[in-house]
Amino acid sequence: MKESDVMKKNKKSDKVIVDPWGKSLVEDYSRLIKEFGMQPFDIEEMPSPSTQMKRGIIFGGQDLSVIAEAIKKKKKFYCLTGIMPSAEKIHLGTEAIIQQVKYFQEMGAITYVLIADVESQATRGVPIEEGKKRAMNFHIPAYIALGLDPKKTIFYFQSENKEVSNLAAICAQKITENEFRAIYGSVHPAKVMSAFTQMGDILHPQLKEAMPGVIPVGIDQAPHIRMSRDVAKRLRSEYGFFAPGASYNKYTSSLDGSFKMSKNEDIGKIEIPEKDRKELEKKLKKALTGGRVTAEEQREKGGEPEKCIAFEYCKNHFIKSDEVLGEMYRECIGGKNLCGECKQKYLVKYANNFFDDFDEKFEKARKIVGKIRFEQ
Amino acid sequence: MKESDVMKKNKKSDKVIVDPWGKSLVEDYSRLIKEFGMQPFDIEEMPSPSTQMKRGIIFGGQDLSVIAEAIKKKKKFYCLTGIMPSAEKIHLGTEAIIQQVKYFQEMGAITYVLIADVESQATRGVPIEEGKKRAMNFHIPAYIALGLDPKKTIFYFQSENKEVSNLAAICAQKITENEFRAIYGSVHPAKVMSAFTQMGDILHPQLKEAMPGVIPVGIDQAPHIRMSRDVAKRLRSEYGFFAPGASYNKYTSSLDGSFKMSKNEDIGKIEIPEKDRKELEKKLKKALTGGRVTAEEQREKGGEPEKCIAFEYCKNHFIKSDEVLGEMYRECIGGKNLCGECKQKYLVKYANNFFDDFDEKFEKARKIVGKIRFEQ
Repeated sequence: MKESDVMKKNKKSDKVIVDPWGKSLVEDYSRLIKEFGMQPFDIEEMPSPSTQMKRGIIFGGQDLSVIAEAIKKKKKFYCLTGIMPSAEKIHLGTEAIIQQVKYFQEMGAITYVLIADVESQATRGVPIEEGKKRAMNFHIPAYIALGLDPKKTIFYFQSENKEVSNLAAICAQKITENEFRAIYGSVHPAKVMSAFTQMGDILHPQLKEAMPGVIPVGIDQAPHIRMSRDVAKRLRSEYGFFAPGASYNKYTSSLDGSFKMSKNEDIGKIEIPEKDRKELEKKLKKALTGGRVTAEEQREKGGEPEKCIAFEYCKNHFIKSDEVLGEMYRECIGGKNLCGECKQKYLVKYANNFFDDFDEKFEKARKIVGKIRFEQ
Repeated sequence: MKESDVMKKNKKSDKVIVDPWGKSLVEDYSRLIKEFGMQPFDIEEMPSPSTQMKRGIIFGGQDLSVIAEAIKKKKKFYCLTGIMPSAEKIHLGTEAIIQQVKYFQEMGAITYVLIADVESQATRGVPIEEGKKRAMNFHIPAYIALGLDPKKTIFYFQSENKEVSNLAAICAQKITENEFRAIYGSVHPAKVMSAFTQMGDILHPQLKEAMPGVIPVGIDQAPHIRMSRDVAKRLRSEYGFFAPGASYNKYTSSLDGSFKMSKNEDIGKIEIPEKDRKELEKKLKKALTGGRVTAEEQREKGGEPEKCIAFEYCKNHFIKSDEVLGEMYRECIGGKNLCGECKQKYLVKYANNFFDDFDEKFEKARKIVGKIRFEQ
């Protein structure tokens, strides 16, 4: 969809409603930045920007200058993310979020990871005890394997954190029915319960001490950020809350090039872990590329990496080395490899490295997960 | 308002929406019974009916035959009520509820009293710790003084009971936006949070073991009962829940005869406690009576107790002896006393007795309140 189509589509309402529970196709990041009152991501202001930031995967944010300031002046700030302990799988999009959290943690953020066992029970029928077990067996060690430092992370279960549910009830006083509808598109009671529980999650670190915070998210979570900022401002006089900041990463495409990799699609999906490497290779080889119609044309004009899912996956997830990624890029535009060759040389190889590394770190993390103390 | 007026008023919507957070004038109990799908209270089926039941103060219910059956067959059932720990005062209408709970407790109900400290914080700005303190200092001992047996009552704070908030999230999945609006009149997020927290309260005793339950309420709470019954039925296959039953008592009028004694009116209000007995007497003497225009007419025709607030208060709250109440009634209709004399002889005297008795029991109850163990 081009910008003009998006404009046309949204002409009536004059607003983009992004539904964090559904799938919306949103391609025009600059329009989103405007619609959601974000600021474009400014790499100049961030201290020691991450690879992810340098590669443009972080495209926008809210109050990131406040966070940059806190980092530079070594002031307290927090970073929060969540685990939905339904399936024992992690979405590549979630990997992108964890990379963000890792960056802020390394920059000194007090880091919270909540396990959304209440929401998982309510929305996906996973009993609380089962959700806890899955989080302990899989999600928490997986988050650690992907880069979180367990010694510097405060984990908690929604089902055990009364501060969160108590704060949720307070937050709900501050938003009207019409405001909720404008942000979320409808006022289904389950959405209300879920959204305010998330408000409780996002704001509760400030109950002990008000401080800036940053919530790294995909764009589908923008409504939660918007509402939590409104709520925080309205509770400021009573609780001193800072409006939480946010950093947004781009969606991860499906292998076939369609927008956003969803947990609900069952074809063309790369998830973490990928135990069956032959299956992985088969799936990766189906990835849409930016190749030309004929081999001759490809040799002559070179490929188009910006249209290539293989390149996107390598850039966003599998190849952490800028040198290697640069090589892949140059070989592509130089027409050195046909797409099949390139996939073998880069996508398949580095995906395998990525999953080998994950498996090894995951097994290590499982051994220490019993020692983690949870916030009540 | 006569039935015909009520009918006219509700012609458009064809439904009476009773707002548990507001004040609705609802005089026609038989219409309510029909509108809310209640059954008229049938004293014949209740084992050892209470004074309150015999005097017609309980006018309707839901599934009370199931409760009667459980009592007769000594099967497990539960009864639940709540404390809103805002002001350190109890409404006479609440006294009527506690009388109901006392009856079911004596009949063998597993009795729950929740302290709505979360709701009190969210809706009335009373901090959780302050709400807890007020409950400990005042409400819990007051409930005991009014007849609850603390040894047979399970008390808990909403702020500490995670089962309740977890169940609330599950309940919210089972009601649509339109259903919620039809029951409550609007879908304000705070109403949603509050209503589903109450669903969690009402249904959580059945998580350990499904059993019938009875929630004694005033008619303003009918929407909560209606929704909790819908939710329970929809969760039946998963949790085995019984739809909770309910018993309804009539409103307590204001001293001036207007409908429902509200906590928000500050004239003509009798509350528990009434420390200043001279002030109490002054207020009671202002009560609307069913007296005639002249003393002669009164002597000749007698008074009209069914129009007399003094008689209503004595019947509903202050005179527990049927003999004394009968005497008051007969003297009134026989024209023996003028209203001033009657008030002195019955209303003032028995109100004083009631408050003396309360004060004494309250002081005793305060001494044992520290020993109460709360459900988590």
